[in-house]
Amino acid sequence: MNKIEAARKGIITEEVREVAAFESIDAERLSKDIADGFTVITRNINHNIKPLGIGRGLSTKINANIGTSKDHISVEEERMKLEMIIKYGADAVMDLSTGGPLKELRRTLTEKSPISIGTVPIYEAVVMAVEKYGSITKMTVDDLFDVIEAHGLESVDFITVHCGLTRNAIEHLKAQRRKLDVVSRGGAFLLEWMIYNDKENPLYENYDRLLEIAKKYDMTLSLGDGLRPGCIEDATDRAQVEELLTLGKLQKTALEAGVQVIIEGPGHVPLNQVEMNIKLQKKLCNNAPFYVLGPLVTDIAMGYDHIAAAIGGAIAGAAGADFLCYVTPSEHIRLPSVDDCIEGVIASKIAAHAADICKEVPGALAKDQLMAKYRKGLDWKGQISMSFNPEKVEKMREHIPPKEKEVCSMCADFCAIKTVERALAGR
Amino acid sequence: MNKIEAARKGIITEEVREVAAFESIDAERLSKDIADGFTVITRNINHNIKPLGIGRGLSTKINANIGTSKDHISVEEERMKLEMIIKYGADAVMDLSTGGPLKELRRTLTEKSPISIGTVPIYEAVVMAVEKYGSITKMTVDDLFDVIEAHGLESVDFITVHCGLTRNAIEHLKAQRRKLDVVSRGGAFLLEWMIYNDKENPLYENYDRLLEIAKKYDMTLSLGDGLRPGCIEDATDRAQVEELLTLGKLQKTALEAGVQVIIEGPGHVPLNQVEMNIKLQKKLCNNAPFYVLGPLVTDIAMGYDHIAAAIGGAIAGAAGADFLCYVTPSEHIRLPSVDDCIEGVIASKIAAHAADICKEVPGALAKDQLMAKYRKGLDWKGQISMSFNPEKVEKMREHIPPKEKEVCSMCADFCAIKTVERALAGR
Repeated sequence: MNKIEAARKGIITEEVREVAAFESIDAERLSKDIADGFTVITRNINHNIKPLGIGRGLSTKINANIGTSKDHISVEEERMKLEMIIKYGADAVMDLSTGGPLKELRRTLTEKSPISIGTVPIYEAVVMAVEKYGSITKMTVDDLFDVIEAHGLESVDFITVHCGLTRNAIEHLKAQRRKLDVVSRGGAFLLEWMIYNDKENPLYENYDRLLEIAKKYDMTLSLGDGLRPGCIEDATDRAQVEELLTLGKLQKTALEAGVQVIIEGPGHVPLNQVEMNIKLQKKLCNNAPFYVLGPLVTDIAMGYDHIAAAIGGAIAGAAGADFLCYVTPSEHIRLPSVDDCIEGVIASKIAAHAADICKEVPGALAKDQLMAKYRKGLDWKGQISMSFNPEKVEKMREHIPPKEKEVCSMCADFCAIKTVERALAGR
Repeated sequence: MNKIEAARKGIITEEVREVAAFESIDAERLSKDIADGFTVITRNINHNIKPLGIGRGLSTKINANIGTSKDHISVEEERMKLEMIIKYGADAVMDLSTGGPLKELRRTLTEKSPISIGTVPIYEAVVMAVEKYGSITKMTVDDLFDVIEAHGLESVDFITVHCGLTRNAIEHLKAQRRKLDVVSRGGAFLLEWMIYNDKENPLYENYDRLLEIAKKYDMTLSLGDGLRPGCIEDATDRAQVEELLTLGKLQKTALEAGVQVIIEGPGHVPLNQVEMNIKLQKKLCNNAPFYVLGPLVTDIAMGYDHIAAAIGGAIAGAAGADFLCYVTPSEHIRLPSVDDCIEGVIASKIAAHAADICKEVPGALAKDQLMAKYRKGLDWKGQISMSFNPEKVEKMREHIPPKEKEVCSMCADFCAIKTVERALAGR
């Protein structure tokens, strides 16, 4: 019996209890939300990790993408990235490797990771197709499904599958020609394959086969948005919304088949369209958990896209997005370094936490209350302990130190808190 | 004739033409908005700088705070901060020095700066009082107004004056006891002075005298929020809103007297209260320009407060805030370093730009359109030129370089843009 089946029968599993306890919410309500598809717990039946709840009433989760490319391959560096993103609080990790020993990389991660692992199977299928046949377009449908099956068997907890990029969508895209057509890598591979072979998207056409595999391993499907906007001007256009309509239908089919689904979303979205995008997705996709990439509220923050993404992510989270994919300072520039991954995780954690205060997630505001208490008490150890990167903060404070340990070097003994305490106490 | 008087008479000055041309808006409309107090142009009659427009229909401006403290004094470092914040695009700079040769520091800045300079005169008055009498509380009303007069005479373009922190407000504060009472440094000084001397706020009681000086030098008053919330839990409370009501009255009086006014705002505000705070200020303060510090959408982002501030600032800007005060990564930790100032400016520029896209500021979206065009054309030189820190981006790209110059090391030759171009062209 998988998670949805158990939830439908009203059985509260150990897994559900564990997530409910972690989130400080009611286990029965959580179970009902899983049955309704409002919430998922990402854990492959073969994976011995902490189960991750994503969805209604839960804290906003963050995912960190790691992985090699053909231009930069280091298993050691990827291992270090995994270690660092876990240290700084990522809830899930996606292995997006496209270069080097893909299977070894993936197995290293699934073995070493205590958190949920996601993949984009078409990456591996495409890399193999290029190795085997010399071209993406020669990949067979079985090649793709063999990789998906292998990922299920080998403990992957959730996979991105761009099922909504149909022939119909491509016709619309050709007619419309956006500023930046398709910026999803998986979407681009499928599009080339479909055009060259003059065939329907194999993940759409063989959706039942996909559901069967997903169900077998209780692997969550993250329905990818191959047509997510790649620039502000393409946001919330026909192409994006048409794909979302398809994803809503596919979510329903999956839920009926007992497969957990997350919907992926944009992308590049102007600030004043972010909330609308979240509400539209929730409406069109039956309140399934929403997983956003950023969104980036401007295209020009190259080198600082983690900040543009934190702005969009915080607003998205507050509006109901459940899962934020981090963006690192290296986005649009290069494969991220280990340090970039740390910066990406922290920016995303700030966004998720700012959202959780608004969502009234149990325990969220309490953190700010504790920080305010430490601040008022000029308790520097306490304050530093509450920060997202205590080692960095400690070093910063030591680098331009105060003369009196009680205050900080910004105001020195002109500290506002000290002044007001003295004045109100009548000293 | 000062700016408001000229505007009232329908005279379009050179200054107004210059700002209107820079903003690509109509000069007559701008002039009318100045007469109505919806917009200000900050430039002291003694200051030979580029005039800065802040207000309705204009691009969102950003201010960078620099200055020494008693614990860290380096005129050279402050000069370097000025140079860097200008290089990275600050529209105004505030000298918040409280340590070392204050007059020399201020004069260096007013001489060297091509952008508007703001100060908080009470800082200098308090430092002098401590030197002269051994205590803040011994400062005389004349001491304070002598400093204000000197700042006017010596070319300061706008000053923060915490006129709204009245005895009445302090009584409310004592009754309520917020989590973090008063975190405004100027507010704290005034509060101690008022309680110790059992007197009304001299800036409130002698508001006419303040208006006279401001008018003489056409120096803009930035009405400070001494009771701005210092933590998420204190946001939008009685104390904050009562002060805002007072500021609204004071704005009206100043406008009638022909003095330009900006209203200062929070501070620490949860994400879902930011828009409401902006709309409330606009309503209660007769649509005067609104200058926000952050706002920070969480208290726990120590070390990354520039990101928490970028989230709040972007939302505030999109909701109508006109002027964002940057926050650096050093906020709540130490006096910022030169690098912190750069990071603060860039985070704030991203927030302001994200807001300007929503405000439909002339030329804002065009930047994103150009970036998208360069991105589609795989034009790396073009993309880098559009970023907020081209040198940093260039270095990042070189550090993990692509094998083919056409792409980047994130995807290597699996580049989505390249793949889609090839597929749609039928190659």
